[in-house]
Amino acid sequence: MNYQAPLEEFNFLLNTFFDIKSSSYEQVFKNLDSEIISTILNEGKRLSEEVLAPINQVGDLKPAKLNGTNVECPPGFIEAYRAIKDGGWIGISGDPQFGGMGLPITLTTCLNEMMSSACLSLALNPLMTQGQIEALENYACEEIKALYLPKLNSGTWTGTMNLTEPHAGSDVGSLSTKAEPLVDGTFEIYGQKIYISWGDHDLAENICHLVLARLPGCPKGVKGISLFIVPKFIPDQEGNLGSMNKLKPISLEKKMGLHGSPTAVMQYDGAKGWLIGKKNEGMAAMFTMMNNARLGVGVQGLSQCERATQTATRFATGRIQGKSPVIDEKTEGIIQHADVRRNLMTMRVLTTVCRYICFDTALSLDKNKFGGDTKSAARAAFLIPIAKSFSTECGCKVSEIGIQVHGGMGYIEDTGVSQFYRDVRVTAIYEGTNGIQAIDLVTRKLADNGKVAKSLLLEIREVEEQAGSELQDLANKVSEVRHEVSKSLEWILNTSEVNDRLAGATPFLRAFSLLLGAKYLLREAIISDNQDRLALSKFYINQILPQAKAEANAARQNAGELYDYKFEEYFE
Amino acid sequence: MNYQAPLEEFNFLLNTFFDIKSSSYEQVFKNLDSEIISTILNEGKRLSEEVLAPINQVGDLKPAKLNGTNVECPPGFIEAYRAIKDGGWIGISGDPQFGGMGLPITLTTCLNEMMSSACLSLALNPLMTQGQIEALENYACEEIKALYLPKLNSGTWTGTMNLTEPHAGSDVGSLSTKAEPLVDGTFEIYGQKIYISWGDHDLAENICHLVLARLPGCPKGVKGISLFIVPKFIPDQEGNLGSMNKLKPISLEKKMGLHGSPTAVMQYDGAKGWLIGKKNEGMAAMFTMMNNARLGVGVQGLSQCERATQTATRFATGRIQGKSPVIDEKTEGIIQHADVRRNLMTMRVLTTVCRYICFDTALSLDKNKFGGDTKSAARAAFLIPIAKSFSTECGCKVSEIGIQVHGGMGYIEDTGVSQFYRDVRVTAIYEGTNGIQAIDLVTRKLADNGKVAKSLLLEIREVEEQAGSELQDLANKVSEVRHEVSKSLEWILNTSEVNDRLAGATPFLRAFSLLLGAKYLLREAIISDNQDRLALSKFYINQILPQAKAEANAARQNAGELYDYKFEEYFE
Repeated sequence: MNYQAPLEEFNFLLNTFFDIKSSSYEQVFKNLDSEIISTILNEGKRLSEEVLAPINQVGDLKPAKLNGTNVECPPGFIEAYRAIKDGGWIGISGDPQFGGMGLPITLTTCLNEMMSSACLSLALNPLMTQGQIEALENYACEEIKALYLPKLNSGTWTGTMNLTEPHAGSDVGSLSTKAEPLVDGTFEIYGQKIYISWGDHDLAENICHLVLARLPGCPKGVKGISLFIVPKFIPDQEGNLGSMNKLKPISLEKKMGLHGSPTAVMQYDGAKGWLIGKKNEGMAAMFTMMNNARLGVGVQGLSQCERATQTATRFATGRIQGKSPVIDEKTEGIIQHADVRRNLMTMRVLTTVCRYICFDTALSLDKNKFGGDTKSAARAAFLIPIAKSFSTECGCKVSEIGIQVHGGMGYIEDTGVSQFYRDVRVTAIYEGTNGIQAIDLVTRKLADNGKVAKSLLLEIREVEEQAGSELQDLANKVSEVRHEVSKSLEWILNTSEVNDRLAGATPFLRAFSLLLGAKYLLREAIISDNQDRLALSKFYINQILPQAKAEANAARQNAGELYDYKFEEYFE
Repeated sequence: MNYQAPLEEFNFLLNTFFDIKSSSYEQVFKNLDSEIISTILNEGKRLSEEVLAPINQVGDLKPAKLNGTNVECPPGFIEAYRAIKDGGWIGISGDPQFGGMGLPITLTTCLNEMMSSACLSLALNPLMTQGQIEALENYACEEIKALYLPKLNSGTWTGTMNLTEPHAGSDVGSLSTKAEPLVDGTFEIYGQKIYISWGDHDLAENICHLVLARLPGCPKGVKGISLFIVPKFIPDQEGNLGSMNKLKPISLEKKMGLHGSPTAVMQYDGAKGWLIGKKNEGMAAMFTMMNNARLGVGVQGLSQCERATQTATRFATGRIQGKSPVIDEKTEGIIQHADVRRNLMTMRVLTTVCRYICFDTALSLDKNKFGGDTKSAARAAFLIPIAKSFSTECGCKVSEIGIQVHGGMGYIEDTGVSQFYRDVRVTAIYEGTNGIQAIDLVTRKLADNGKVAKSLLLEIREVEEQAGSELQDLANKVSEVRHEVSKSLEWILNTSEVNDRLAGATPFLRAFSLLLGAKYLLREAIISDNQDRLALSKFYINQILPQAKAEANAARQNAGELYDYKFEEYFE
């Protein structure tokens, strides 16, 4: 079960396609010469291929387990985590003032892709910590920052997010965990949280929980939620660990996949916590954290696309079955069969599209972070639900096709490819289900009257216009779909019923994603003379992109059709 | 985890939509009055809901296991199998001369759907036996029939199929298991077979293996394969069991799902076997058996569509999260949210389409079986790869959407919905992968120059013509897609390169399936005044059917595009 980090792709995207040395990324990459970037990527490659990939299946077969109130990780995870930590790969984008490396989010994205491809369950741990680092950088007071950030950036301590309660999932506003204020300015947290990824483990000295809870007398709903940091062991001001806090994991979920990552039910029985940000404004802090975490989850989807594609391609190259009409002798693998090749092409090109979307999002985030470019911030905000939803949906789809390419062997656990599907399946659910992402897209992210959406459509038209005569046919096909998506966008913007908008949310997100993919691939065909790249672009625009028309059409039906069928009547 | 057998649907399809009392089905249903059919369906319902559904999750959690050379089934399986056997549900369509009930395949399809919805892993056992019954009815000599068929029809013995070897999967012709002739006319079988569903178990007295093997000096490839029956215990002529044969399960596969069904590696060390049919003509017999088994597997896909849809609908009705714009108070389930509703509508309508396709196929098989109607035989032969491939693909898709509707809970094994996906996933692989089905469709099943395909397109046009003015818009949309599919059909029939045909196989199958679905649903809208049926038809034709255009378009691209990308270069 080999994994080969796609450095060639990273280099093409960074140096050729997005051209990070150009003036538009000057603020982001000014302190980074190619050699440093190359060293970073190579080290990430080595770590992923040699340290993380070998433990992936171990995590699946020997899940993390709860002994009393302590979680034991699968064999090899402690050593592998140490390698991630020692490499400095957790605080890559953290503020250097607090021990971070201060690198662009775009590079974090590369690293996270490689680590996640190699071992999704373990790589989720640093991802949670990265989210916490960002929340603290933005919302914590200086004292908390100085105490927690260096430990988190170095990976000495790790972070979690505690949102969900049994009756408060997508509907965060209905949560009921309580925070009682103490005279010393701290709080006691009471309640139970579920689905806490890496809620407990034996990889780090301390585990810091960011917990959403309600203060006494707070307003109902999302406007009465505050954010607290609640460490497993209470540190003194120098970061020395003191007594254990009043919190514990009370059970681990038995999940479909991601067995290496312990998903805990956490019990807070008056645990000491510190307020992060302002009272009753916890949701804002959580959303900041979630925004980037959502890109991180999109990258998880992408990572399994890449891993599944590599594995299926390798299998199809070596597996000999039947004679394809294109070769004389039965000496080549099933990769020579047209139907298998269609599967592999679909896998490869969807992987490529997801990577473009994630990179583009990361670059926009970086432009804002390093250059204060608010237009880029808005662009990133629009792209994030797309990156999260489309990449995780592709993660599921591509890894599912991967099983199919393996035939019977794909269904046998030893082969390891079912794990890719089972692991990635959760990415379409957590950090806001893909349905929630689509709703975010057609409501909040179109609240600017579609300004960002329209500017993206304009970007696409500009690429179409750059196509020379030999690519005119492809450009026309992209243009045709762009008109369909524009039509749906206008429909959504003009509809007066919010539920009509919501009804079209998911197909609109899919249509927009597929069209975005065409933008990158058409531009690739224009700027690169690599025949393989051209082949992928043609396949995508000719054979995958037309699906966007059906999605765009579905996006502009109204909600009525969805309510005419009375599901409720069909149960005795 | 309740299951409710869809008797209302069965009754609508049998009595209203297909109208089995009409002259066109006279031969098939002449001896069956409505009361008998109703009794059969009600008994199947009771068995499925009360006996089989409760053990489904047990099978997942406590897989069948190998103790020495004996397989032990999960708790409760012995009792549940006995209930299936005692109900007479195994030989439902078997020849009454040998203890079968001689009922139409259409009714077997209803029963198999219910049993499979309730417990897919156990219901696979009778399905294998039914395949063997059919092979023996068609190819065995009278002596073998008289000895084996009554035992198989009653379920006292069960059957298996032994095709696959480690290096002979889809490429059956490369198998190497040997059959050495003995002087008494029997044979000794030597070799190893893999992926043998229900290859060993403790549910029945004897297990009869249909084994493909090669005789000495036989031609290479598929023309040198013969079929043998190889019982676990060698019976005398009265069916009394004698000594154990020289065969054994040597291991069970650890699979992604379907844990209740033991999948064995079978070792034959000179096991005594009897030739079925003629020497070197085993493939023909195997194909007869597989044809109906493929419909059976399609029904398995359908069964998990139904189960997943019911479960998700029930969950969404009870799960309260957030306030939908269509209701005032937060008192109703997430089923009130448009995006959830879109998922449920998609699940429900795809289930409906799969059931129509499977029913239509079964009725065509019956018309040939009971009325000797060779036109119907050809129609069924064309529909079988569609029924198998589309229904199992929908099985995967619908159960995957079901996980999504459940959110985080869908990813937790306790909820049981991941099992639906994990169980059904193999149906897209076994009994000929879906890719193999598509290839069968565009080669063998179009070898009549598209005669059957065109007659089906004509059937669709006839339905369009029956649409009254208020359904004209829907009919026009169906017509538009029919033209697209016709175009692809002509393209495939006229292409001179066989690999171009193969390149379009899967999208062609998908496009044709989606169009067929529209035929049934448009006709339903015409003949029924049920508002829920109309709602489903509209949703399907307006929002799902357009996907067929993208598939039809992909079907008529040539193979070239699939070979321009050099996968091979991307490995170090």
